[in-house]
Amino acid sequence: MKISKLVGKRVKENPSGATLKSHILLLRAGFIKQVGAGIFSLLPPAQKVNLKIQNIIREEMNAIGGQEVLFPVVMPRELWDLSGRYSSIKSEMIRFKDRNNHDMLLGMTHEEAAVHMMMNTATSHEDLPCMIYQIQTKFRDEARPRGGLIRAREFTMKDAYSFHTTQEDLDNYYKKVLDAYIRIYKRIGFRKFVVVEGDNGIMGGKISHEFMAVTDVGEDYLVICPECHYSSNREVAVSVKEENDHTVVGGMQEVFTGNAHTIEEVCAFLETDEKHTAKAVCYKTTDGGRLVIAFLRGDYEINESKLSKLVKSELEYVDVEEYGLCAGNIGLVGLNVPDDAYVFYDQTLKGLENFVTGANKKDFHIKNVSMSRDMKDATFVDISLVKEGEKCVHCGHTLTLTRGIEIGNIFQLGTRYTKAMGMKINMPDGTTKEPIMGCYGIGVGRALESIIEEKADDKGLVWPMTIAPWQVYFCPIRIDDDNISAISEELYKRMEKAGIDVLFDDRAISAGVKLTDSELMGVPIRVVISPKTMANTEAEVTIRETGEKLFIPINDLISELKIMIEDEINEIEKDL
Amino acid sequence: MKISKLVGKRVKENPSGATLKSHILLLRAGFIKQVGAGIFSLLPPAQKVNLKIQNIIREEMNAIGGQEVLFPVVMPRELWDLSGRYSSIKSEMIRFKDRNNHDMLLGMTHEEAAVHMMMNTATSHEDLPCMIYQIQTKFRDEARPRGGLIRAREFTMKDAYSFHTTQEDLDNYYKKVLDAYIRIYKRIGFRKFVVVEGDNGIMGGKISHEFMAVTDVGEDYLVICPECHYSSNREVAVSVKEENDHTVVGGMQEVFTGNAHTIEEVCAFLETDEKHTAKAVCYKTTDGGRLVIAFLRGDYEINESKLSKLVKSELEYVDVEEYGLCAGNIGLVGLNVPDDAYVFYDQTLKGLENFVTGANKKDFHIKNVSMSRDMKDATFVDISLVKEGEKCVHCGHTLTLTRGIEIGNIFQLGTRYTKAMGMKINMPDGTTKEPIMGCYGIGVGRALESIIEEKADDKGLVWPMTIAPWQVYFCPIRIDDDNISAISEELYKRMEKAGIDVLFDDRAISAGVKLTDSELMGVPIRVVISPKTMANTEAEVTIRETGEKLFIPINDLISELKIMIEDEINEIEKDL
Repeated sequence: MKISKLVGKRVKENPSGATLKSHILLLRAGFIKQVGAGIFSLLPPAQKVNLKIQNIIREEMNAIGGQEVLFPVVMPRELWDLSGRYSSIKSEMIRFKDRNNHDMLLGMTHEEAAVHMMMNTATSHEDLPCMIYQIQTKFRDEARPRGGLIRAREFTMKDAYSFHTTQEDLDNYYKKVLDAYIRIYKRIGFRKFVVVEGDNGIMGGKISHEFMAVTDVGEDYLVICPECHYSSNREVAVSVKEENDHTVVGGMQEVFTGNAHTIEEVCAFLETDEKHTAKAVCYKTTDGGRLVIAFLRGDYEINESKLSKLVKSELEYVDVEEYGLCAGNIGLVGLNVPDDAYVFYDQTLKGLENFVTGANKKDFHIKNVSMSRDMKDATFVDISLVKEGEKCVHCGHTLTLTRGIEIGNIFQLGTRYTKAMGMKINMPDGTTKEPIMGCYGIGVGRALESIIEEKADDKGLVWPMTIAPWQVYFCPIRIDDDNISAISEELYKRMEKAGIDVLFDDRAISAGVKLTDSELMGVPIRVVISPKTMANTEAEVTIRETGEKLFIPINDLISELKIMIEDEINEIEKDL
Repeated sequence: MKISKLVGKRVKENPSGATLKSHILLLRAGFIKQVGAGIFSLLPPAQKVNLKIQNIIREEMNAIGGQEVLFPVVMPRELWDLSGRYSSIKSEMIRFKDRNNHDMLLGMTHEEAAVHMMMNTATSHEDLPCMIYQIQTKFRDEARPRGGLIRAREFTMKDAYSFHTTQEDLDNYYKKVLDAYIRIYKRIGFRKFVVVEGDNGIMGGKISHEFMAVTDVGEDYLVICPECHYSSNREVAVSVKEENDHTVVGGMQEVFTGNAHTIEEVCAFLETDEKHTAKAVCYKTTDGGRLVIAFLRGDYEINESKLSKLVKSELEYVDVEEYGLCAGNIGLVGLNVPDDAYVFYDQTLKGLENFVTGANKKDFHIKNVSMSRDMKDATFVDISLVKEGEKCVHCGHTLTLTRGIEIGNIFQLGTRYTKAMGMKINMPDGTTKEPIMGCYGIGVGRALESIIEEKADDKGLVWPMTIAPWQVYFCPIRIDDDNISAISEELYKRMEKAGIDVLFDDRAISAGVKLTDSELMGVPIRVVISPKTMANTEAEVTIRETGEKLFIPINDLISELKIMIEDEINEIEKDL
């Protein structure tokens, strides 16, 4: 490919509206262009990377017996009514009517379509296990699209579905997929990623794992034990909480706290520590509008995901005054709520004594409350987020918190979909059984952008050799020189002939612009020839990632490049 | 691939609702499954064919300098407002609102997205020409989905867009694409296809060509001159019409025709020939509801496409009584229509004398009408469909009519989109210019199914070697025999190792079912071993398309198969 013909412009300026390094660089290097909120076109270099990542995924899915299929993007409502998800998924799913006024939707995921394909197709236990997968466009109407392809509304996804007759068989296969995923991410070039226990969200099912690219700009928090390697998404992570002091000091006492409403304000006003307070966090359920009050120790944050699971509904903002409560003064003692309200006590309150909480009365709090004395019937649940420094429940070691971007996930779905849709398999003993499913997703665009977060530097993109849009950036300087021009054309042809994927910077412009572009675009190997290097009949070869420079005799250039490319791919794939 | 693990069931019975051979066979052979009206899932064999066709397309597009990109399926309305197509395309396009109440649509084609990508990307004449293409899912809300993938609502399409500074440059490139398309269809295996002048429909622009798979079940009619190779879609075809008799016989005479309203009824009633009548065909425009009356000789059919272009609007059914006209008695003489009505006279009326037409009066027609005497101010247009037996306007030879399925199309778009969207290119002389565009489409699924229409026989599918899901169907008989089983496993491994794409029928079932399945699935080469063939240490090799049988010594089998596969691919691609 000659860069003079390449569709896409490199720009110096940081584009407005982009904050993530990866997003900025994709725009600046001419890889993507925004079409709407969370909607992008991929320009030729990005599509090349996209296809290379897809190919790695395809190879690894095929290697574990996966069979590629294609499900439709648009599906009729009836299919999703069978699973109940037409109603249960809210505004993330696009719904519309077709010309015949028929309810249709855009698939966010394809469990229903997978079961539909397998029904009456796999009928005997001999037809299982099997795994089908597709690589297809999906649209999710995200409330807050962000970071380019990291959280786009439209994206390319590999989604896979496996079917089994026994839980043991699923367990075995699930492990195979997990290993295949690790191979995929390693082959893409990831070095900083972890597998954590995941949250099942809208999928249903019990066991799940998330593959997380570790990065400071990740939206997810991960809890990791450096000792026993316990690792989990903070949404579902567990920990040993700090023990509370068991001494009771004095009786309850109502105190005026005026406009002090937040836990910080109350602590400042009463000159106490957040650890000696119990705060209330309030919501209502989106299904039914029931009030939900969660009490937890003042220095902890609520885990909305766990709370949401407890009440089996999504949660939304509530105006507590509508329920007759005093916002900013809600407390454990003397709380008066509707009969159908949920009230939960987090485990961080266990054994808490001598603490401050709201008085359920405007402008007042209560001091010297004691769980053991004043709330002795309370039962405790786990609804607080894990904090840095807490202990691992498995080994007691101190936990660390880090951030990550979810680049893949795998789920054990159980029989949630096969049961709902009535898919049955004839078993050897004459009975029938609903198959047990697993499902396995990889966001291709998100992987593409996350690897940039891991590898890019302040000069621009840095592509691993396995997925780079081109392997070599061939950059002759002074191409207006007839001699350089002729040698360049010749070398370019020889590189192409040798099967090297090369981008030839054939522009007669300043060396500075060309070298800067080569760094911005992140092609792994740059080859420069100029009147100066040609005086020694050699080329200057630079490794983008390390900056390492070599001078290679022109006669050995092609064969040396082939070896360097091969070595680099072997290095990336060495531990598979 | 072992067939025992393959997802998909072969069935004997013809599926209900399918009428086309190709559609029936895809369902029976376990290649596709219907999810909704005009919406299908592709099972593994169909997806394999799909990817192989895509690959051929990709190679040929890259070979003419195409750069692969990816446009979004979902686009915001604003982009399509720029071209005016958000309003002008009617119910074929899916529109919906996102969670922020923003108008969105599903792209049926991507001219707007292509210009959006190129704007501010190509700014100088040096950036052109260029061609970008994608292979992506599209959704068109067809009123009458039919024939499986032939006219599906959701389908995979390759769409390409080229940009040029001069018409001459577009003309040259357009020719290159046309040649690339011919290579693509040949490589897919088509032998019966023609290139015809096409109708531009919703695309705008002037010159276009359609690639038509010739088949009796095609929806389109093609007009072909066997002499000079003029070929055209009947919607835009031209011909030399039969000359009319120039003798005038007698004066006009009103005659009672009662309930005779259709041209057949009137001719029967008056004992005259359709060639001696002028009929009226009436519509109203969808834009503005203006009345449209087209008069043509009674034995001709209206060409709605040409009529629609004349009035620059789509046409719909009209109740002529609402305009004060007598349905069934409309005629040329004494016609009284609103001022804004369109009245056209087809060229088949030129020189027509002594004919019957409606009297514009209930239950009456007029005899002995003369164009030269009674309608001497009439001007003629071409709005009748070409009939078999008419003459070629280029060489005078008799034209033939045939039917076809449109498997691709190419258009010269001109500046319709670049002008509307304000894309400009800096020219060498300091001026700016809107680039001239071409666009080029191939429906992948339609090609997949059309090749079946061409090649399948009464035993089942017949895949060309270049796109076959597998190259070899390996079918051991009596696999329950330990010896056969061991040899089979060994041969299967050797085939796979040799890079042969093989489907291994490892089922211990009757020979009949296995052989029937192999024919139904259409794999080009079948290899049978059985105790009988092994007695001679040979395999029976059958060519699916011809039924030709060979016996090959087991020791030569792998190398012979490699040669046969290679030869078959060379045979398909020989004339490129």
